[in-house]
Amino acid sequence: MSDPFPAPGSSDEVERGARLTPRFDANGLIAAVTTHAVTGEVLMLAWMNAEALSLTLSTGEAHYFSRSRNALWKKGETSGQIQKVAEVRVDCDQDAVLLKVWPQGDGGACHVGFRSCFYRVAQADGSLVEAPDAGQHAH
Amino acid sequence: MSDPFPAPGSSDEVERGARLTPRFDANGLIAAVTTHAVTGEVLMLAWMNAEALSLTLSTGEAHYFSRSRNALWKKGETSGQIQKVAEVRVDCDQDAVLLKVWPQGDGGACHVGFRSCFYRVAQADGSLVEAPDAGQHAH
Repeated sequence: MSDPFPAPGSSDEVERGARLTPRFDANGLIAAVTTHAVTGEVLMLAWMNAEALSLTLSTGEAHYFSRSRNALWKKGETSGQIQKVAEVRVDCDQDAVLLKVWPQGDGGACHVGFRSCFYRVAQADGSLVEAPDAGQHAH
Repeated sequence: MSDPFPAPGSSDEVERGARLTPRFDANGLIAAVTTHAVTGEVLMLAWMNAEALSLTLSTGEAHYFSRSRNALWKKGETSGQIQKVAEVRVDCDQDAVLLKVWPQGDGGACHVGFRSCFYRVAQADGSLVEAPDAGQHAH
């Protein structure tokens, strides 16, 4: 697939410019943080290649790239947890994007059955405890 | 450095278990999303190796790994933007962590001068506009 985004310019252009010029890594991916548009809760962290980012911007629905399946992945295509995109942001060095979304379907984002993938808190001793606010969604 | 974390077990152990067993990538890194403990605002996305994650948990101050400098990096060591850690979470497949922090110093997290690194909104046509809520911090 041809890259739909211009190549990154100087640091100043990347940080201050008015053009989206994503800095994909050696595997052609950038990190994507997804938050709930209303509550601001961080729902998940996933990856995008140029096609996924382009489709997310053009369709208004979140697309990612699955590293385990090595394939484009439209969120919710099988689970029904489509993510309608309220806003896409990019960070200073343009190697990460932030999506604010309205989750559809049962309102969840995590395949394990929680609303957010970040349902466990790590303690200093390396143990994990379920977060008090880790809401289960219908499954 | 020896790895301070146990090796990941089965999918079920990783997703449901009560042990932090981070799944570092081929470069020994996991993604770290950092949010403001009070406002929930996403401040930055960075990377951690085992040492950075271990130090973050044991000291209560955020440590990362700089890919560009290929070195451990204590946030705020030069800028004063120390991040006191309120909570560390891990995601379902344990390849990303979520930090909730109280930013110290001038309250910012981004070297460009904004409170958050995500100060620009991407439009469908690939242009970027400064977010209305992208607060500048003292610099």
